[in-house]
Order: sequence, then structure tokens, then C-alpha cells
Amino acid sequence: MLNPGDIIGILGGGQLGRMMALAAAKLGLKTHIYCPDPNSPAFDVTPYKTMADYEDEEALQAFAQAVSVVTYEFENIPAPAVDFLKARLPVLPNDNVLKVSQDRLSEKAFFNSIGIKTAGFAPVDSQDDLQKAVETLGLPALLKTRRFGYDGKGQKFLKTPQDLINAFEEIGNQPAILEAFVPFEREISVIAARNQQGQVVSYDIAENVHKDQILKTTTIPANIDEAIAAKARQIGESVATELDYIGVLAIELFLLPDGFDNRLVANEMAPRVHNSGHWTEAACLISQFEQHIRAVAGWPLGNTERHSDCVMTNLIGDDIKERPQLLENKQGAYHSYGKAETRDGRKMGHFTQLSPRSRP
Amino acid sequence: MLNPGDIIGILGGGQLGRMMALAAAKLGLKTHIYCPDPNSPAFDVTPYKTMADYEDEEALQAFAQAVSVVTYEFENIPAPAVDFLKARLPVLPNDNVLKVSQDRLSEKAFFNSIGIKTAGFAPVDSQDDLQKAVETLGLPALLKTRRFGYDGKGQKFLKTPQDLINAFEEIGNQPAILEAFVPFEREISVIAARNQQGQVVSYDIAENVHKDQILKTTTIPANIDEAIAAKARQIGESVATELDYIGVLAIELFLLPDGFDNRLVANEMAPRVHNSGHWTEAACLISQFEQHIRAVAGWPLGNTERHSDCVMTNLIGDDIKERPQLLENKQGAYHSYGKAETRDGRKMGHFTQLSPRSRP
Repeated sequence: MLNPGDIIGILGGGQLGRMMALAAAKLGLKTHIYCPDPNSPAFDVTPYKTMADYEDEEALQAFAQAVSVVTYEFENIPAPAVDFLKARLPVLPNDNVLKVSQDRLSEKAFFNSIGIKTAGFAPVDSQDDLQKAVETLGLPALLKTRRFGYDGKGQKFLKTPQDLINAFEEIGNQPAILEAFVPFEREISVIAARNQQGQVVSYDIAENVHKDQILKTTTIPANIDEAIAAKARQIGESVATELDYIGVLAIELFLLPDGFDNRLVANEMAPRVHNSGHWTEAACLISQFEQHIRAVAGWPLGNTERHSDCVMTNLIGDDIKERPQLLENKQGAYHSYGKAETRDGRKMGHFTQLSPRSRP
Repeated sequence: MLNPGDIIGILGGGQLGRMMALAAAKLGLKTHIYCPDPNSPAFDVTPYKTMADYEDEEALQAFAQAVSVVTYEFENIPAPAVDFLKARLPVLPNDNVLKVSQDRLSEKAFFNSIGIKTAGFAPVDSQDDLQKAVETLGLPALLKTRRFGYDGKGQKFLKTPQDLINAFEEIGNQPAILEAFVPFEREISVIAARNQQGQVVSYDIAENVHKDQILKTTTIPANIDEAIAAKARQIGESVATELDYIGVLAIELFLLPDGFDNRLVANEMAPRVHNSGHWTEAACLISQFEQHIRAVAGWPLGNTERHSDCVMTNLIGDDIKERPQLLENKQGAYHSYGKAETRDGRKMGHFTQLSPRSRP
């Protein structure tokens, strides 16, 4: 259990680390950002930082001595860094979670093991495996590297037999997974949190629209039945409980059209605060960032209720140039990550437009 | 007009500077805190700081070169520091405002000059002056130093002629002011903001309760007629306009009982974000802190509408020890200033309890 003034170590200095640091400050806690990138936006919101590689044991040692607990903003932390740190102080969420979520194959197997449906899938370790997997799962299908994929990176959509040619090479001859195509109606996500005392909460279900494989908008409430929403929240909460999870996690789900036996299919999980939860900062009393910090601090979780409906829009690349108009918009909250350089496809900020709360 | 990544200099490193810095971060702006106190809570939320006296010209010079604009969290900045800085870069709000608000006499004269009522008052520069002022204004009355007073410091309440004995000496033989006692029904305050383009906005009127002369609770909406509320907002907005003000300001007002000709009497103003506006962080889309930063940045002001009713309670001294219970309270947001040392009468944090929005 942390005390006011204690320092939380955060691995990763991007916008998620930055927003966690801001939430920690509101709770009277300090943060220390560890990131190799000198231009990390999170370095601008705390005086405590380590700029070093995740392989630098000297830096990791000093970091471990400077902080009371470690958390992270991304799931692809090199395992040796986590092993090094967890031998010295708590690393939350625990690293079993990382092992599950760093690998698409073990993630899907985990979902199935606790009764959560996924698309059909098969491991692919060669072009031959790919051919066989397609025979079982059919086309279209998605070939994805098992590790290090995000925002559509390391993926290939296979529509016709011709697309298979060299596909395994194209994704880099890496351990992969083939996923059957799911004819989904909507993409939704659940943000859940669990603390050290085992308290579990979840936010209202978000409906997500991707563009060029990057999240573009999140709308709350999702346009789904209440029973489906309740089921989705239950999925988030049961995953948190099953994994003995501490912190915030996100699960992306596909909603299949009416008529399917299992309308909810888990796509992937993120063991961290998530872009589809950014709306909570503007539309809830307690944001996902504060919730994560409360959990990591060993403190009680807060209320997840929304006070308003909303649409969160990611500001990607040049979208951030719309700042003057966005600041003029009287129904929305503008959030910039303070990144020095604007690049195509780079998440630069987000904008959350509120409207009065509609249905429960 | 600031650009993302520009640095705002903030004079003062207390909780107000800290919350301004957090608001600036959300807008993608950096902040540089200037404060002589090594334990300033605002030093924990930015890597850019100057720990130096306000008389240190070398430090002021370096500060002026490091930032794009200067603002402040307290009105009692030594005038030479402001003069030094304003010769080099914009200091906002402008220093005319400081001159008016640093001195209770000129503040009251200013209010009267633009048609805003105050309690009767008279300058007091000696024990003799005090006797004469009491003859005119009557008892009870309040003797206050003209400068450097806050939270009841430098004040003496005079009830009987006996209380006059040595009163001028007791407040330190300083230039002072005698204020007639106002039989007020409630204390309210208005938070207004104005930007460089002359746009002016104000928040819903807050009703304040003080304990031991320190703000204890702020309730929104205030329990007052709509016409009174509109008049109070107009007072805030007209002061901002008259002073060519840039940033957020607060005016404390007394509401006199029904039957008085002028039911609203200005008590004092603060040329900065204000404790009675802390509720805006939890109950409005755009907080007073963000509003101030937007104004200082030359950006459009945001929406001041509240989405919820609320009661903000200051956590003073040992109140902060209620943290576990406050975090368990599902209808409230807990905010700690991260101060290392708890002292009697010291503002340690605040708690804002929300309820659904009632009347407009």
C-alpha cells in the first residue's frame, strides 16, 4: 500500500505513461518515467526520469531503488527487464499477464480456457503451416505475428489463395498465428480494473471505429443491447479476476450479428490503460488512468459511472493541426500529448465531445 | 499565441501552480515553476524549475529566457520581480491587476469606481485614524492590513470599543483599512476568465463556508436566486473586462439579506485561480486551471457549464488522513497536493462530491 509522496515507476514514456503520471499527481503520488527515447512526452510531466535502454542493468538497478512499485504503459517490455525488476520490487500487473498477452497464441488459448470465445485460430511457424491452417480455417483470414504487433503492424489480410504466396515471409518469417475472419457487426471494448484487495470494476462498454487499423473514434454508450453490454463487462471483469490482475486492462471484442450463437468474440487484450478508455477522463468522475494508479497503489478503486455520453476522436498525425477549431468547440475537451514531432499515423492527442447522459 | 511545446513560466510552487501545470500538460504545453521553497509541491509535476528567491535577478533572467510567458499563482509577488520580468516578456495577468489587488484600499476603490458595492471602508495609518474611522463606520468592524493578508492573517475583528486598544499595533503598525461589518446572509464567489481576444466567461456561482477564516466548503449551485447569480457573474465578467484582464480571477461577494437595496457586496478579489473554483475540475468539462492556461496561451476559452452539482471540501491539516474513507466514497473525487508535511491549517488537498445536476 503506497503512501502519499511515494514514487511509482513507469516503464515507457509515451502518452499512456504521461497520462498515468498526471493521474498519479492528482492523487499526491510521484512518478518516475523509465524510457530510452529522449523525446518521450512523459518526461515533461515529472522531474524523475531514467533515460536508458531496457537492457541497461545499472539503470534498472537505480530505478528499482528510486521507486516503490513498477508499472508499465506497454506490454512488449523485454522479459529480462521485468525479471530483473520483479526480483527487487513489485511489478504490477504481474508478469504472468505479460506472458499471456505478449503472445497472440497464448492469449487466445487463455481466453478459450476460461470460456471466452475467440475467432478460430492456428499457430503458423512456416509457409507450410500457413497452407494447412487455411485449409482448416478458410479464407478470408488474418495472418499475424505472435508478438510485438500493434495498430495493424505485423499483420496480413488474406483474401484469396493468391494472397498466401510468400505471406509468411512478408510478415518476417516469425512465429505467427492465423485467425479466421469474423464477420463482425461492431467492434467494442471493455476497460476493467482490479486492485490488490480483489475489488473489480469495469466501465461502460465503448464502441470503436478503426481507420487504417488505428483507433479513430470511441463512442459511449455503444449501440448494443444491455444484455450484451453486461456480458462484455463480465468478460472484462472475469479476465481480471482469473489473471489475479492488478491495474487496468482492456479487451477488444467483436460483436457478431444477431443470429450467431456466441455474439461476443474476444479479439485481443491489452494489460494496461487503453486508447479506447481515454474518454473516461472527460466523461467519468474517475478516469482509467486514476483507476490504474489506485490499483497499483493498493488503494480502493473509484466509481466507473459516466456522467455524460461522449465520442472520443483520436488526433492522428496532422489532425492535431485542428487545435484552434477543437478549442472553439464548446462541447468537447481537447487533450494533446505534447509530442514535439508530428508524423503520419502518430497519435498526437484526442478530443472528447460530451453530450448529456442518455440511457443507462 | 503559444504553440504546443512552448513553456509557461509560473511564479509560485504551491498547489495552485501545481494544478495549473497539470492543466497545461493536458493541453500539450510545458511549465517551468519558479519558487524559493525547495519543498514546493509544483516541483513534482514538471522537470523545469528554478529554486530561487524572487529578488534573484540572475535566476529571473535565466527564467525569462527559458519561458515564453509568465503567470503566477499568488498576488503578493514582489513588484521588482514583476517589473524585471515584464521588461523581458509578457507577464499575465498584467501588473496593473496586481497593483489593484495587492492593496485592499485600492481594490475597494476600484470596485466602487466601476459601480460595484463594497462595505464602507476607511484607510487607517495610525491608532488615531482607527478611532476616527470607527466613529464613521461604527462597530463591529474589521481592521485589516492593506497588503499581504490571506486566510484571515493580518486581521482583527473589532466588536467593542475595548477591542480598539492597541489594535493598530497588534496588526503590526502597518498601513491598514477599516471595513464596516456587513451582516451577510451568505458568502459566494464568482470565477471569471478573459483571454487576449477579449472573450469573457464565468462559472456557476459558488457558495462558500469558511471555518477559522479558511475556506472549508464550496457548494454549487449556490442557494441563491437566479437573478442574483446572474448579477454576480456579471460582476466577475465586468471586472475582468475593466482590468483588461488575461487569465482567471475570483471575486468573493457577500450576499445581504432580502430587503437591502444592494444585496451583493464585493469583499475581495484574487487575480488568479482560486480555492473556490477547485470544484470545476470535477464538475465541469473545462476546469478553472485549464481556462487560465488557455487564456495565458492566447487560446480560445472553454465551456464553463457544469455537468453535475457538487460540494468541494478542503482537506486541511489532518483532514488528509481521511484518505482511505474518501477514496472509498463512490460519489467523489479526491485530490491531494502531494505536500510532504502536514501542518495545522495547511491546505493538503480537496474532495469534490458530485450529484446529478439539478436546476440550471
